[in-house]
Amino acid sequence: MSLFLSVVSVGKAVEVVRGIAPPLESGDVPLENALHRVLAEDIRADIDIPGFDRSTVDGYAVIATDTTGASEAIPAMLSCQGRVGMGSADAGSITPGSCCYVPTGGALPRGADAAVMIEHAEQIGDDVLVHRSVAPGENVITRGEDFRAGTVVLERGRVLSPRDIGVAAAIGADRVTVAAVPRVGIISTGNEVVPVTATPGPGEVRDANSYLAGAFVTERGCRPVYFGIVRDEREALKAAVSSALDTCDVVLVSGGSSKDERDNTAAVVADLGEVLVHGVALAPGKPTIIGTARGRPVIGLPGHPASTFVVLVAIVDHLLAAMRGTAVSRRTLSARLKQNIPSTRGREDYVRVSVRDGEAVPIFGKSGLLNTLVQSDGIVRVPASSEGLEVGEEVEVILW
Amino acid sequence: MSLFLSVVSVGKAVEVVRGIAPPLESGDVPLENALHRVLAEDIRADIDIPGFDRSTVDGYAVIATDTTGASEAIPAMLSCQGRVGMGSADAGSITPGSCCYVPTGGALPRGADAAVMIEHAEQIGDDVLVHRSVAPGENVITRGEDFRAGTVVLERGRVLSPRDIGVAAAIGADRVTVAAVPRVGIISTGNEVVPVTATPGPGEVRDANSYLAGAFVTERGCRPVYFGIVRDEREALKAAVSSALDTCDVVLVSGGSSKDERDNTAAVVADLGEVLVHGVALAPGKPTIIGTARGRPVIGLPGHPASTFVVLVAIVDHLLAAMRGTAVSRRTLSARLKQNIPSTRGREDYVRVSVRDGEAVPIFGKSGLLNTLVQSDGIVRVPASSEGLEVGEEVEVILW
Repeated sequence: MSLFLSVVSVGKAVEVVRGIAPPLESGDVPLENALHRVLAEDIRADIDIPGFDRSTVDGYAVIATDTTGASEAIPAMLSCQGRVGMGSADAGSITPGSCCYVPTGGALPRGADAAVMIEHAEQIGDDVLVHRSVAPGENVITRGEDFRAGTVVLERGRVLSPRDIGVAAAIGADRVTVAAVPRVGIISTGNEVVPVTATPGPGEVRDANSYLAGAFVTERGCRPVYFGIVRDEREALKAAVSSALDTCDVVLVSGGSSKDERDNTAAVVADLGEVLVHGVALAPGKPTIIGTARGRPVIGLPGHPASTFVVLVAIVDHLLAAMRGTAVSRRTLSARLKQNIPSTRGREDYVRVSVRDGEAVPIFGKSGLLNTLVQSDGIVRVPASSEGLEVGEEVEVILW
Repeated sequence: MSLFLSVVSVGKAVEVVRGIAPPLESGDVPLENALHRVLAEDIRADIDIPGFDRSTVDGYAVIATDTTGASEAIPAMLSCQGRVGMGSADAGSITPGSCCYVPTGGALPRGADAAVMIEHAEQIGDDVLVHRSVAPGENVITRGEDFRAGTVVLERGRVLSPRDIGVAAAIGADRVTVAAVPRVGIISTGNEVVPVTATPGPGEVRDANSYLAGAFVTERGCRPVYFGIVRDEREALKAAVSSALDTCDVVLVSGGSSKDERDNTAAVVADLGEVLVHGVALAPGKPTIIGTARGRPVIGLPGHPASTFVVLVAIVDHLLAAMRGTAVSRRTLSARLKQNIPSTRGREDYVRVSVRDGEAVPIFGKSGLLNTLVQSDGIVRVPASSEGLEVGEEVEVILW
């Protein structure tokens, strides 16, 4: 097939990568290892939570109507039947006119329907003076009020946060079924690329892309597998991609910043499978290649790290999310644009910005500079339909 | 010393935890394992980046003045001296009236000071017609333009992002010096608390706090060490805390939701060291205990997970950041309040909210409910100096 397809929109490129995301296995992990994993099955409450009516305060379990009209001046007097111990299997019972001391989280005795805070009561011998009335249900959580047995509490596709892990524990999910961690093969190509440990000679640059891509996919819950630097030779690159396909779920080939090199990457993908996209209406990031081989996505990234990063954010992120069975999660911020951003209709531009006091300041420096990656706080997307954004406009900053 | 100190402000509590954060060792790790670690030393560029003048386009390296006045109608004609190969040690040289093909990222030949995009040139035999003039420096990044040798590129205290990892690779940092990962001992206490694997009997609840706290500290770059559930008995708790202090840098004791239990935790901290704070003007989260023992912080968290989480966010986060030698990093969002939030002056309130279309909707449900943790998107802080926040007010939501 032709390697010189027409340039596609970012939206189309995202649709293509979503379409080729291979389904992954899921498996059980212990809950304590499940942070940031993607739930592959709903988690339901196994029992009513809480399993019993409980007090939310330190105080006295009462029958609410016994406190009607109680005030500082005219307290209600109740007879104290004892104390509920934390975790005790039987909280006993109370009858009209009586109450029982209950600690925060303690079970209400049978018959009680509210709790009076200790600050609003006064114990004198076996009697308790209640200085404030309470309504039925006040200071109490009833059985199943938090979660009813059988309710879906955490849905499939959710990336488990610390809160979710805590809630999962409460509903008895000591093991959870999560999507597998995608293995992402990472290959750097280019005759000019040397290892990070080397001092680049004239015309050479260090392999920043492998590290950048590796850290990016790690942050998104994937496992990078590094296949090192491959010279810009068709058979060498083919062997490396083929080897990566043996063990990985997706392969990223970065580099090939010159046209010859880009064509080489596309040719290798075509040899091993099919090139679906060669060129995206995206700046920086136009030379992106999207293909499949042996049922797995192979993505060609631009050679310069700053461009590669935009492609990772704009396109690869969607692929990884689709493989994990979840939505792309982005930190965004609204800010006012401090300067015009000119753009070209028909191309999606990603402009690095720094954000100060609610204002987004475009960093226009040459896109080939790494220092803009460090100095910026995020990127602003200029849609393909726009000829630019104007100073003062409210923009959404995708935070790094 | 007294266990019944007066309640302190959240600001004071944060100051106290920062003051007792123990200094941790730092050490070297391979760059590929350094994501989200905290830099313990500045990273400087070891050499000029790039190490040579390079083209940012596929095209022709030229002497800019040779193109002055060039246009579609009247192109400049230059003699092509050949091609620069990617990574070749010598890019050769050009003289006035000549040019040389150079790929994106390729080194400029000596004498050249600009590059003409291939789209604006036409090669005919050994001659190249240039259809557009370029200024000196156009389409070129000069040696050291990105980073000068010796410049600090990434500063101590920075939490390494994927971008930072990529940039560190470019400047030769194959190993980086990072702060140690704090070891956080986690103990759950309370006679009512049963393991996640158990089905709670009457009056019992599962140990959600250990999982919640463990996941929270993991997300903040710390390693949780679980010491299980301890009954609410002074000697048992003392033994557990003491054992945690043997191997951990900080100990979190969650639980003790009732007053008796809270006093027990405080008494144990006093036995082993010193209670510095017993009670914070924070809702939920008032019963927080801050102490030290054997030079390490021991923090008593409230018994209910929803309250524990607020204390983790409002106070413990600052302790962990201080131990790692970095700033607290928060995702925040500005939103308009959809409803009034009443509050009490002198106490900092944290109210869970869900955010929809730029509006923050307070979730007032009882603070003892876990479902509000799952349903909310973050919390709004009502400062101690305020009697509440009003509908329509712009508030900062601390996103979960």
